[in-house]
Amino acid sequence: MQNFDYYNPTHIVFGQDRLAELDNLIPSDAKVLVLYGGGSVKRYGTLDKVKANLGARTVLEFGGIEANPKFETLMKAVDVVKAENVDFLLAVGGGSVMDGTKFVALAANVESDHSSILFHGFEPVPATTAVPLGCIATLPATGSEMNAFGVVTFNEQKYPFTSPLVYPKFSVLDPNFTFTLPKEQIANGVADAFVHVIEQYLTQPVNAKVQDRFSEGLLKTLIEEGPVTYQDNDNVEARKNFMWSATSALNGIIGVGVPQDWATHMIGHELTAMFDIAHGRTLAIILPSLLRARKSHKHAKLVQFAERVWDLTDGTDDEKIDAAIDKTESFFNSLDIVTKLSHYGIDETGIENVVTNMEKMGLTHLSETGDLTLDIVKDILMAAK
Amino acid sequence: MQNFDYYNPTHIVFGQDRLAELDNLIPSDAKVLVLYGGGSVKRYGTLDKVKANLGARTVLEFGGIEANPKFETLMKAVDVVKAENVDFLLAVGGGSVMDGTKFVALAANVESDHSSILFHGFEPVPATTAVPLGCIATLPATGSEMNAFGVVTFNEQKYPFTSPLVYPKFSVLDPNFTFTLPKEQIANGVADAFVHVIEQYLTQPVNAKVQDRFSEGLLKTLIEEGPVTYQDNDNVEARKNFMWSATSALNGIIGVGVPQDWATHMIGHELTAMFDIAHGRTLAIILPSLLRARKSHKHAKLVQFAERVWDLTDGTDDEKIDAAIDKTESFFNSLDIVTKLSHYGIDETGIENVVTNMEKMGLTHLSETGDLTLDIVKDILMAAK
Repeated sequence: MQNFDYYNPTHIVFGQDRLAELDNLIPSDAKVLVLYGGGSVKRYGTLDKVKANLGARTVLEFGGIEANPKFETLMKAVDVVKAENVDFLLAVGGGSVMDGTKFVALAANVESDHSSILFHGFEPVPATTAVPLGCIATLPATGSEMNAFGVVTFNEQKYPFTSPLVYPKFSVLDPNFTFTLPKEQIANGVADAFVHVIEQYLTQPVNAKVQDRFSEGLLKTLIEEGPVTYQDNDNVEARKNFMWSATSALNGIIGVGVPQDWATHMIGHELTAMFDIAHGRTLAIILPSLLRARKSHKHAKLVQFAERVWDLTDGTDDEKIDAAIDKTESFFNSLDIVTKLSHYGIDETGIENVVTNMEKMGLTHLSETGDLTLDIVKDILMAAK
Repeated sequence: MQNFDYYNPTHIVFGQDRLAELDNLIPSDAKVLVLYGGGSVKRYGTLDKVKANLGARTVLEFGGIEANPKFETLMKAVDVVKAENVDFLLAVGGGSVMDGTKFVALAANVESDHSSILFHGFEPVPATTAVPLGCIATLPATGSEMNAFGVVTFNEQKYPFTSPLVYPKFSVLDPNFTFTLPKEQIANGVADAFVHVIEQYLTQPVNAKVQDRFSEGLLKTLIEEGPVTYQDNDNVEARKNFMWSATSALNGIIGVGVPQDWATHMIGHELTAMFDIAHGRTLAIILPSLLRARKSHKHAKLVQFAERVWDLTDGTDDEKIDAAIDKTESFFNSLDIVTKLSHYGIDETGIENVVTNMEKMGLTHLSETGDLTLDIVKDILMAAK
């Protein structure tokens, strides 16, 4: 196991009908800006319920944060925070709204050059203050409700950023708010959470037994509860397990002390930025091809994945690995996610454009060992054609 | 899954040779009181290493915190904190030192009636401030390094207490500090961590799949790495996995949203208070008998435990359960822990005294369902005779 630091101060408020506790979770004298997305939280009454539980606090609203939130949109929220002296941000929505709110929290305390927040990659943004924020998470997927990461689109590129200052003070995870989600968003969320786990698990082995077993437990739970949640809108218990799996997949606990390989995300981000394919879906397209291309590199952990997650104990190691990758792809397909680029109108020219763009972005040596070069990226994409 | 809150702000600093980071972890102007136990941290040089990394800060020392720390001893540390205006507490030791330091942190900000801190059970102590504290954990076992609990002995009874104010600001977990531990303390630590998991896992099922699988992962890791750590003082990697299992067993993550049955601890505390048997050892004595007495009550989860943790798939449910409990007892025995009360000089009269004492303490309805009465406690103890 590698040396590690773990720190995660977010207070999770999990379960049905917890909104009344907002009154204790937000300072009583706070001026609150509620941030949300395309309006479904308004349409389905979630926003009214949230506001009803904010008591006598002054509450402002900022709607219209789009999927893959844009720098320009978020800067409008920053203007509101500054002009109105807002001192608490409340994100009501999925990963895009939560990520966007984290950006606003940092940018509102910066005087100029706000886009530079996005140019530090996975190193902490050099900020010393941020507006405190809380989340009402309506879509289990990204884990943003319990981590210090965000992704924002700037000049049609997706940029990750992180700062310990943007850990949510609290996140309310109420399965009731997920019942109105379009079905394909559940599928995307399951795929997103599944790939989050894989990227911290299917790497070079370092004998981190707790982390490995936690990861395997999350994968098994997603395999069991993801399809149930996708098919059956009334199964609250499956939904709770799915939600807690998604949060646990990216709150740091499975990633401590182990190498991490975020190549699937890096390639997926390009597909979203260039072709507007939903994030979770891009990951499901890339992952099976990436695993096939990296079979020898990931050999030891792929065997473990086959045996422990998919219960494949017969055959040679290579046969187990092939079967495990096939089962992973079938799992995505069972959620009605097509894992072929052609389905999304992307041909060889499109693939070449992705590779060219990644080169421009400097994404030339992916994976935890830095040996996933752009010729391999091209092979992966061609195999997913 | 039940509704739950999860909040744990402790910063974990895990791995070898991390002491130099103390300088960043403690405020540079802090007046630090270093608290420790019987002197082994002094004898083996740990204390000198810690002090060397505290730079120009004023550092005071308070040694002599005994196993199962006593109220009277800790009040002497409280006097030092008050007289010297100490503003940071640094615990260097195992569970007793960390628990005791948490008590000091709360008691130092109270003017009178300090023992009342101990009379709130598992409800938070009604305090509003505490002296901040950090830990250098030298014994993986209690989980105190990453939770808000402590146990202190007052009038020869053990009293648990909790407050979010006593989460350590940080805990350094360096396997190097465990190499000088007496072998039986490793055994006790493995047993303690194992039983911590069991008490959050072997309860009434609520379909909490993530928590169940995390618990099973910790149990399997303890089964694999506990005996290796016990036998082989040089296996750093096994020791790291054992340490992280022990911390993860009681940092809250496996206990969210599930019922918890702390009956083994409640009975074990009496054995320690009355007969001075090491805490972990008392748990190993009680648990197998308790599980046998509660077979029908815990039926569903015991079958799951047998199948998933001990890989027992043949036979009837009852046969699997019996085999799993036997294997659990053998596991403790393999660590040279004798699981019979007679070995510790406790006969039927002693057992009757334990039951009488528990009645006096009001511990008459244990377990998550409150139906583990004192006649069952007596049966459990008699079966462990």
